[in-house]
Amino acid sequence: MNHPWWLAGAQPVDQQMQAKAVARQQQLTKPSGSLGQLEQLAIQLAGLQGRERPGIERLWISIFAADHGVVAEGVSAFPQAVTGQMLANFVGGGAAISVLARQLGASLEVIDLGIALPTPPLPGVRRVQIGAGTQNFARGPAMSPDQASAALQAGRDSVLRAQQAGSELFIGGEMGIGNSTAASALACALLNQSATALVGPGTGLDAAGVAHKAAVIERALALHGAALHDPLLALERLGGFEIAALVGAYLACAQQGLPALVDGFICSVAALAAVRLNPSCREWLLFAHQGAEPGHQLVLQALAAEPLLHLGLRLGEGSGAALAVPLLQLACRLHNEMATFAEAAVAERPV
Amino acid sequence: MNHPWWLAGAQPVDQQMQAKAVARQQQLTKPSGSLGQLEQLAIQLAGLQGRERPGIERLWISIFAADHGVVAEGVSAFPQAVTGQMLANFVGGGAAISVLARQLGASLEVIDLGIALPTPPLPGVRRVQIGAGTQNFARGPAMSPDQASAALQAGRDSVLRAQQAGSELFIGGEMGIGNSTAASALACALLNQSATALVGPGTGLDAAGVAHKAAVIERALALHGAALHDPLLALERLGGFEIAALVGAYLACAQQGLPALVDGFICSVAALAAVRLNPSCREWLLFAHQGAEPGHQLVLQALAAEPLLHLGLRLGEGSGAALAVPLLQLACRLHNEMATFAEAAVAERPV
Repeated sequence: MNHPWWLAGAQPVDQQMQAKAVARQQQLTKPSGSLGQLEQLAIQLAGLQGRERPGIERLWISIFAADHGVVAEGVSAFPQAVTGQMLANFVGGGAAISVLARQLGASLEVIDLGIALPTPPLPGVRRVQIGAGTQNFARGPAMSPDQASAALQAGRDSVLRAQQAGSELFIGGEMGIGNSTAASALACALLNQSATALVGPGTGLDAAGVAHKAAVIERALALHGAALHDPLLALERLGGFEIAALVGAYLACAQQGLPALVDGFICSVAALAAVRLNPSCREWLLFAHQGAEPGHQLVLQALAAEPLLHLGLRLGEGSGAALAVPLLQLACRLHNEMATFAEAAVAERPV
Repeated sequence: MNHPWWLAGAQPVDQQMQAKAVARQQQLTKPSGSLGQLEQLAIQLAGLQGRERPGIERLWISIFAADHGVVAEGVSAFPQAVTGQMLANFVGGGAAISVLARQLGASLEVIDLGIALPTPPLPGVRRVQIGAGTQNFARGPAMSPDQASAALQAGRDSVLRAQQAGSELFIGGEMGIGNSTAASALACALLNQSATALVGPGTGLDAAGVAHKAAVIERALALHGAALHDPLLALERLGGFEIAALVGAYLACAQQGLPALVDGFICSVAALAAVRLNPSCREWLLFAHQGAEPGHQLVLQALAAEPLLHLGLRLGEGSGAALAVPLLQLACRLHNEMATFAEAAVAERPV
């Protein structure tokens, strides 16, 4: 693997359209800057989409699910069977992301990358079985290099399907009991931070559970040692199939020129891994929210991300990204449809 | 006026439906609390609407516009003619709130409560002329008691029209060159704070402009003295017709049992005045966002408000409230349509 696909450069941002969007914002009938973050958002989308008047109408959501060997260490509040049960809930329409996708008119794709308990195939779930979950990273590498490659490719394949369908925004989501432990460990490696600085309750650990989770991660960080200085090796050693798929998806979005809206803590760690692997992808990533998991803020800071929402979310599934979609859409509508001072015969602020 | 209408009590919140909504939230297929602020929002709306499964579909937006005599002190970055010009932009469809109302399918009502420059009647604008703007509150009372009553009643009349139309949410917005000065002065009176702690750039003053604005307000606070300890007198002395109309609207919403979504700094000051006049209205007020104006945070704290958005907005017109509407709608959809653990056969967290 001399030059794997994920190292290829991102699509360039259209500087000319971005400049036109900046000029248009200055002419709209409002005090300059008064729409806050939404102004910059519309300008960024103009540059990414290569049009002065951007729009986010056709939405694609891919949910990547997988299990984690590290749950053997007792790091999750929920039993591992929930990963598979939630797959059925996603396609059955009862999960949070199912409700949100329906309401937003988004295409929802559910991908089983490897759950631990044997289950019959589920209609509506795409199976890309990479393994029966990862191995326990507290005792060895979570996955092999081939498994990591397959997971990265699975994420890329979703992006190619999204693009084929004419999507204007890609949202990745994740499901996997134990995956906040994997994401926290990976974030520790990428940020060179201790576990105590980053680890939180995930789906609902108490204080003793959080302390135990941090201790498990510290042990794993010591076990894997210098390998963790390389982002790809860190992903193999500590990550999950769904986390690697998200990394692949974000990299492919940038290469294909499709903006990606990053969900919560786990997705943000995947985004950080993607940027460390290939910094050119950063410009194509938008950040939906800062959630309740304590490490999320540190990861977002490392990405120089300005999340749109701060609602104390910690569900995953892409739900926080879906909740931010109306802000993207309304930012575009405001940018595109507001009258200029000249059109509306409104006096501009005297210079 | 022994017992003016605005002192009558608010509709009671339906505690039984609120308790049912709490119980339902605990059964939905997600870790408890993982939807953050949106869970409490759905529960609150269940109590306000008196149904276990609330919904916010029919939206009403009233924009109250008026001029301010205090602009004679040179406190605004824009000329006073802009108030009237923006009325035309609201009904013409080119203002931010026009774009948002269209996109949300909301009824948009525009009310001219008194602008300073004579203008011909404008189709689509409702005229309730209380005066040619307020008087300069740096030199005397902004309005007479009769004018304050008329403005409060104008807000109430809007709420009655909204309810007649079957609206499930009331949004008030404001337009008036100089009204961040009036709102800041009123906030100083209600919070017993100095102007320097509260005053900001409004539509775009520079540092010298902000300092001048603060000095004008300090002078006015000294001029009106002890009268400002009474919230109704403070509103008369310092407020604007549109601010008083918002106060009346929020009080009427609570009395009629219609939830109100409060916009930015100026609307939040009106909400604070409403709560000081009649504390029973507080439960019916939802807070859309914390904006860029420095006093906004202090006003929200005094209201124990938890705003949904933090986007650095400072436009007014009800625009920040409109931007938060999809979060209310999606919070309801999630609450209403997600499967329970039993329905989806998903394992609950072991106790």
